[in-house]
Amino acid sequence: MDTNSRKRTLRLLSNGLYVMTSASGPRVGAATVTWLSQASFTPPLVMAAIRPNSNVFACLAESGVAAVHILDATQRDVAQRFFSPTTVTGGTVNGEPYRAGITGAPILKNACAFFECCVRQMVALGDHTVVVMEVVEAQCPRECLPLTVSASPWAYGG
Amino acid sequence: MDTNSRKRTLRLLSNGLYVMTSASGPRVGAATVTWLSQASFTPPLVMAAIRPNSNVFACLAESGVAAVHILDATQRDVAQRFFSPTTVTGGTVNGEPYRAGITGAPILKNACAFFECCVRQMVALGDHTVVVMEVVEAQCPRECLPLTVSASPWAYGG
Repeated sequence: MDTNSRKRTLRLLSNGLYVMTSASGPRVGAATVTWLSQASFTPPLVMAAIRPNSNVFACLAESGVAAVHILDATQRDVAQRFFSPTTVTGGTVNGEPYRAGITGAPILKNACAFFECCVRQMVALGDHTVVVMEVVEAQCPRECLPLTVSASPWAYGG
Repeated sequence: MDTNSRKRTLRLLSNGLYVMTSASGPRVGAATVTWLSQASFTPPLVMAAIRPNSNVFACLAESGVAAVHILDATQRDVAQRFFSPTTVTGGTVNGEPYRAGITGAPILKNACAFFECCVRQMVALGDHTVVVMEVVEAQCPRECLPLTVSASPWAYGG
């Protein structure tokens, strides 16, 4: 297989840009993620491929909960902020105000929609771990044109 | 959880529209799929959530191989053709000409890019089964603006 062809082909897959958060005790983890999709209607499942050396992975592996935030196309700066390591100060994570969700995962107040989930299964075969999660809460308070990788300057967002 | 909020929120996730094919002996399966993402760079993995009662799932579960085709934004009619049950006649599947790939999976000649993969693991927790596959071949012969769910008349494509 030609690795350049493989790279060009896999970059044609369409992805959104999301911020995933988690908490385990006092520890908070948050990161921009792109490799995420719904995986079932009943029960409502999503699948996400997450770097196992990330802070958000460490938190969700311990606590079994996470939140996924959908950003608006105008919120590219928010996605960029979560490429950096997690920093929590004065009710903000990476500068974004948050509150605790029903699972305990941090909910970013400026996201246009979010859902909270509980980890159901993990598959560790590659440099990202596939995490299958059940959606237990979802809120979509405003209209939103979701931010996508293809509309961003990035080819991969974590 | 409000089911209407959940539905509206999960519809904000960004997906492409792909045609997945597989073969097992003389049997061919093909279907439009949307819940699919890359899942690792090394090894190159993808994850897809596939309806276990579909013909394409029956074939890939038996043979352990599948091909995923990326369609151009102008090929909405091709995606629509694979919403129907698989029909193979005279070198075509659902009216689309194909050849056998290196894995034996059918390769649609009109797709703008495709990759072939081998099944590595399955997770059966919901009404779709999560299939983690390793990419073993990829070709991207032409320029392509990939077809996405958000640019289609559909909210879900299988």
